[in-house]
Amino acid sequence: MIDQLVKMLEEREDEMIVIRRYLHEHPELSFEEKKTAAYIADFYKGKGVDVSQEVGNGHGIVVTIKGGRPGKTVGLRADFDALPIKEELDIPFKSKNEGVMHACGHDAHTAYLLVLADCLIELKEKIQGTIKIIHQHAEEVPPGGAKSIIQSGIMDDVDAIFGVHVLPVAPAGTVGIHSGYSFNGRAYFKLELQASGGHGSSPHKANDPIVAGAYFVTAVQTIVSRRVDPLQTGVVTIGSFDGKGSFNVIKEGIEIEGDIRYSDDQTKEVIEKELHRIVNGIEALFGVKGGLEFVPDYPPLFNDPELTIFVADTLKDVNDKDITSVEEFPKMAPSDDFAYYLEKIPGCYFYIGCTPKGTENPYFNHHPKFDIDEDALLVAAKSVGYVVCNYLNN
Amino acid sequence: MIDQLVKMLEEREDEMIVIRRYLHEHPELSFEEKKTAAYIADFYKGKGVDVSQEVGNGHGIVVTIKGGRPGKTVGLRADFDALPIKEELDIPFKSKNEGVMHACGHDAHTAYLLVLADCLIELKEKIQGTIKIIHQHAEEVPPGGAKSIIQSGIMDDVDAIFGVHVLPVAPAGTVGIHSGYSFNGRAYFKLELQASGGHGSSPHKANDPIVAGAYFVTAVQTIVSRRVDPLQTGVVTIGSFDGKGSFNVIKEGIEIEGDIRYSDDQTKEVIEKELHRIVNGIEALFGVKGGLEFVPDYPPLFNDPELTIFVADTLKDVNDKDITSVEEFPKMAPSDDFAYYLEKIPGCYFYIGCTPKGTENPYFNHHPKFDIDEDALLVAAKSVGYVVCNYLNN
Amino acid sequence: MIDQLVKMLEEREDEMIVIRRYLHEHPELSFEEKKTAAYIADFYKGKGVDVSQEVGNGHGIVVTIKGGRPGKTVGLRADFDALPIKEELDIPFKSKNEGVMHACGHDAHTAYLLVLADCLIELKEKIQGTIKIIHQHAEEVPPGGAKSIIQSGIMDDVDAIFGVHVLPVAPAGTVGIHSGYSFNGRAYFKLELQASGGHGSSPHKANDPIVAGAYFVTAVQTIVSRRVDPLQTGVVTIGSFDGKGSFNVIKEGIEIEGDIRYSDDQTKEVIEKELHRIVNGIEALFGVKGGLEFVPDYPPLFNDPELTIFVADTLKDVNDKDITSVEEFPKMAPSDDFAYYLEKIPGCYFYIGCTPKGTENPYFNHHPKFDIDEDALLVAAKSVGYVVCNYLNN
Amino acid sequence: MIDQLVKMLEEREDEMIVIRRYLHEHPELSFEEKKTAAYIADFYKGKGVDVSQEVGNGHGIVVTIKGGRPGKTVGLRADFDALPIKEELDIPFKSKNEGVMHACGHDAHTAYLLVLADCLIELKEKIQGTIKIIHQHAEEVPPGGAKSIIQSGIMDDVDAIFGVHVLPVAPAGTVGIHSGYSFNGRAYFKLELQASGGHGSSPHKANDPIVAGAYFVTAVQTIVSRRVDPLQTGVVTIGSFDGKGSFNVIKEGIEIEGDIRYSDDQTKEVIEKELHRIVNGIEALFGVKGGLEFVPDYPPLFNDPELTIFVADTLKDVNDKDITSVEEFPKMAPSDDFAYYLEKIPGCYFYIGCTPKGTENPYFNHHPKFDIDEDALLVAAKSVGYVVCNYLNN
Repeated sequence: MIDQLVKMLEEREDEMIVIRRYLHEHPELSFEEKKTAAYIADFYKGKGVDVSQEVGNGHGIVVTIKGGRPGKTVGLRADFDALPIKEELDIPFKSKNEGVMHACGHDAHTAYLLVLADCLIELKEKIQGTIKIIHQHAEEVPPGGAKSIIQSGIMDDVDAIFGVHVLPVAPAGTVGIHSGYSFNGRAYFKLELQASGGHGSSPHKANDPIVAGAYFVTAVQTIVSRRVDPLQTGVVTIGSFDGKGSFNVIKEGIEIEGDIRYSDDQTKEVIEKELHRIVNGIEALFGVKGGLEFVPDYPPLFNDPELTIFVADTLKDVNDKDITSVEEFPKMAPSDDFAYYLEKIPGCYFYIGCTPKGTENPYFNHHPKFDIDEDALLVAAKSVGYVVCNYLNN
Repeated sequence: MIDQLVKMLEEREDEMIVIRRYLHEHPELSFEEKKTAAYIADFYKGKGVDVSQEVGNGHGIVVTIKGGRPGKTVGLRADFDALPIKEELDIPFKSKNEGVMHACGHDAHTAYLLVLADCLIELKEKIQGTIKIIHQHAEEVPPGGAKSIIQSGIMDDVDAIFGVHVLPVAPAGTVGIHSGYSFNGRAYFKLELQASGGHGSSPHKANDPIVAGAYFVTAVQTIVSRRVDPLQTGVVTIGSFDGKGSFNVIKEGIEIEGDIRYSDDQTKEVIEKELHRIVNGIEALFGVKGGLEFVPDYPPLFNDPELTIFVADTLKDVNDKDITSVEEFPKMAPSDDFAYYLEKIPGCYFYIGCTPKGTENPYFNHHPKFDIDEDALLVAAKSVGYVVCNYLNN
Repeated sequence: MIDQLVKMLEEREDEMIVIRRYLHEHPELSFEEKKTAAYIADFYKGKGVDVSQEVGNGHGIVVTIKGGRPGKTVGLRADFDALPIKEELDIPFKSKNEGVMHACGHDAHTAYLLVLADCLIELKEKIQGTIKIIHQHAEEVPPGGAKSIIQSGIMDDVDAIFGVHVLPVAPAGTVGIHSGYSFNGRAYFKLELQASGGHGSSPHKANDPIVAGAYFVTAVQTIVSRRVDPLQTGVVTIGSFDGKGSFNVIKEGIEIEGDIRYSDDQTKEVIEKELHRIVNGIEALFGVKGGLEFVPDYPPLFNDPELTIFVADTLKDVNDKDITSVEEFPKMAPSDDFAYYLEKIPGCYFYIGCTPKGTENPYFNHHPKFDIDEDALLVAAKSVGYVVCNYLNN
Repeated sequence: MIDQLVKMLEEREDEMIVIRRYLHEHPELSFEEKKTAAYIADFYKGKGVDVSQEVGNGHGIVVTIKGGRPGKTVGLRADFDALPIKEELDIPFKSKNEGVMHACGHDAHTAYLLVLADCLIELKEKIQGTIKIIHQHAEEVPPGGAKSIIQSGIMDDVDAIFGVHVLPVAPAGTVGIHSGYSFNGRAYFKLELQASGGHGSSPHKANDPIVAGAYFVTAVQTIVSRRVDPLQTGVVTIGSFDGKGSFNVIKEGIEIEGDIRYSDDQTKEVIEKELHRIVNGIEALFGVKGGLEFVPDYPPLFNDPELTIFVADTLKDVNDKDITSVEEFPKMAPSDDFAYYLEKIPGCYFYIGCTPKGTENPYFNHHPKFDIDEDALLVAAKSVGYVVCNYLNN
């Protein structure tokens, strides 16, 4: 069956490209991907498979391909939302939705998975087990779509899950893997500091929230420098310090917002605990009142070590001309709500190299000039195809 | 002559109150006091004195009363602008200009001086010398009116200048004096910190201007705590820290604005020099680019020691039932552009107690509920009357 | 009587110089002034006055001169301890006690007062009231001698107290006065920060007391910059940060010591309260344990306004060729335990100019090259003589 | 041959223990290991191998075992210095050199390697290639012995190098491996801050080095929190802040010393550059003069990925009853000068579990109660034996 699938994918490479370009031209923001979802649902119409729409907290779609023979259930996921970025690429299929862009490659993810799913549907009688195709909405904006799709119960019977992400750090043909913690987890925090305002000439009659906030910012640096295990990853970025006011008036309050990254759950706990401690400290130091909101967001993404070796071994063994290299990639800074699936279901999220041909310093994902080598579409489809077949057959 | 003047003032006390209430009801913001200036100019119409209008950089008015006999020239100044404050007093003559309020007592200053000037005009044949009545615009908003009035040349021949300010720190009847540095000088600064933005998850690829700004704020504290002579007054308040942004994006720049107070010129120089030093330090520390704008504003107000003793002695000796006490007041935090006159002309700016009757904790100037005891109008008029007569006669 | 006294003082000017030089040559440290005290006690032997020795917590001496007529009781105080400073002056009467020096002028204070006291003893029948001569030990080292002398009860019947300090800020002949708060108060603090040490490579397993101490130091700057009334004086100097250790070991604790100055009692309270607040804040911020010891020391010196005017008027009126000028001196930074007397007894501590002749930039008190113009001795003796006579006669 | 070697090692296990106990009883500090070196040299006497003594900057010994057949050259290294720690173990062979202790297991390293080397000497005719046994002095104290041994040229012909470290994180029987960067690199820095001292009451006349130093410490936190790649390891610990002084005197200078750890060379460069930047910033901020000394020390230890897989595969394949488990160990915080060999020669440094039997929370290396399970000696000898034989035979 695998040979058949590969042949079918090779024959339909052009279709993947057409779909990807169509999606690229019509990007939609997270939670607003109504037309994209309709496009996907249309694709499956009449194909004799079960299509669940509006799954979870948005426009998620789950397609269930029941194989002809009993077996395990495997999930394959591709995300389909775009970003609030004004495209700076000059291509024929440039975004027609001004200010919105498929700058993270979700167009590619969706394109390869539609065609792969269609091929699998054609071959379904030969499939030993069930394949759930998850077209996921809203990966880019927490709380994201993944968590809600899991909560819907539709994944309860899934034994393993796989997904890929295109990354322009290697040419098309390279597949990257990383075992264990691979992407960072993320959290958001907001701190409101309430003080008692006053006149700039009489600081002793007021409590100055800007001074308190500044000492908060400097104290926060010690979380990463002194409290986080140096062998783990922790980041606390204060992206917003909203203390705009009149130059000669001491404000009554300010608002600080920040972004937190962590390689593992223990580091998350350390950062959360220390942030609370520092807020208490600043309250005591300056007699201000601090309200801290800490919102965990995507967890760290943990690739199951056994399934990661399985993916690597599978792809190393196939001797496919299009999969030229399977490499260990380093741990990476970004976050992805695929991590939620991996909290519940063992699986592996791996990387598809996509550096545009002839480019030495490619623009990274989320850049207004982010681009891919479309050869990566077939690589993605084949890689996931090999993995799913090999998984169900063993 | 002085007895005559006092009698006239006592008879016209009600008129002062009427004028003050009219002005209170019709406040105008600094540099926009067109109607107030017209009202004042009208007042002098037909009185046979020289009235210069639109003096300086706004609606300033200078009235010259030439006495019947030769002598010295003395200036008397009252300011007439109001504040962008929404009045919270419930009085019949409440501000009709919503959001604008005579919350600093300039209505009282103008009211007493108009009536005093009118009396002096009536008595002018007996006056030995010249009196210049300065109705000054725009005291509240730097660069203020005073500096430009001096630059106009109209004060060049003035030998001494006097003015008063109503303060609710003592009851009507109390006159306060302070020799030497009495009010603080003031400056404004703005700092633009340019860094290189980036993503919150990758601080090492960016320069974080919020962190740089926070260390700037903490370093600035050392100017007052370590660099300013502890026996002098220095204040550096950062009223605005404009670093609002997305929680997970490292900004490209922020803007900080602050207010500086100083008791004396040397302290001003120390603060200015140290601010520049700290900006250089922050640039070096964080690799950011800082643009510092330092705008000196009203200088410290320096009452001539001899003329201050002269005012005190004059008012202590008069045995006037309405001037119940002449007291040493402490140095004060506010600033006033009367300081500019005193840089060029010896003089004395003194205080007229005005705590509303029956009030124990009066609202201070600039409060939306600031109020005065109108008895203070006569006290002001008499005090300045005694001082000017005594000055010209000696 | 005053004329007689002045004549006697003029005739004994040389003796004052001889005594001052003898004392200068034989300085003794605070609380160790055994020989100096013996020298003073000897001086009074056989003069028929009551001499109390070892008064208070050291070698203090109080001599009581009962006048022939009843009246008020006045105290005159001179201190007699020296400093742990290696003299760098090259003079014939250079310190013979290596490393100890009369670098603050207490030799001059004692010399003039001995001769003045002797003259007053001779004239005692004419004196209306009682004079208590306080030769005070240990002014330089807290807790000082003054507090204990007061606690001994020997000053309980004193109605007013006077003293002088030589200052090289004006030539001999100038007497300086300042009303109200004149010298700063002082306090000492010690902070022990206990953390949990560890290895430099694993900061997350330790609590770093040096980092906590550094944030303490930066936070302390806000006491003076933001909490102290800018019109008052507050100083917090951290003179000692004892965090010496191995470069790669996180210490278990550090010790910080500091010096506090304040113009008035309210500022002292603000600083003490805020120090405690900051220690609490640092404990919360870093999970360390802070032990703060705050030891108030000499209070701010408050010259009674009426008696200050009395001193100034007395000395302005005398028309003495040696007292060429009576001037207002500014508030000063140092502290003096004369302040303790003034907490209990109204009085005035004033200044005797002593700039060495021909010197433009004199070395200040406490400098190894501090020197005085010995003409100041007679000025001091006469000034205090005039004041005490005038005080008792009125 | 390998079977013979294994049998010989098993038979001589007791001897390893005897040697280890002898060394434990006679520990010597780094660079002072004269007797230990003599003991080792004696061991090889008469065994017909070349023994180089006093190699490098201390008492290093290199024994060359020329095999009977030509082949590659492999190095095996064990360190033999002890630590300035007072032993707190109560064992019969407790340190007789009070205050010095083999608290890092170098006694075990040397013991197993002596016996292994002796066995290899016996078998040398069968060896295909050359084995260099490096008994290294002074691992604990930078600059260490390794660097100088390499510089001596004696390692120039070595093709691969192996070594082990006992670690009580796993029981005897477990061998740990980690590919790539495995131990952190290290550097030392010293900062002298020169300011201008003064009196605590007059901060404006001085430059306060303690305040400057405190801001330095807080600014340093941003190196790790903002400048180091979050996916790498960087640590900057300030172990010493020598600012002891009089509480009321502003010091003229302070000295700060610190310890730096880094996972890789780029992070080292970032930290070094940023430390210099921060010193420049503090100079500019506070007008002080900073002298920074940055002394790189042991580099990060990089295990050759291929040889690491080789070690792991070799030991997984042997089916030896004493080697119960071969595991991936995480990256670790410590530093070891074995890293210098690995900069020049490919190799692998791996771990020998040694948790004392019956102990759940063993004391870690460098603790006064650090102990090992002596079964680990045979595991070490066998593991290295398997590796060296397998290496030379392939």
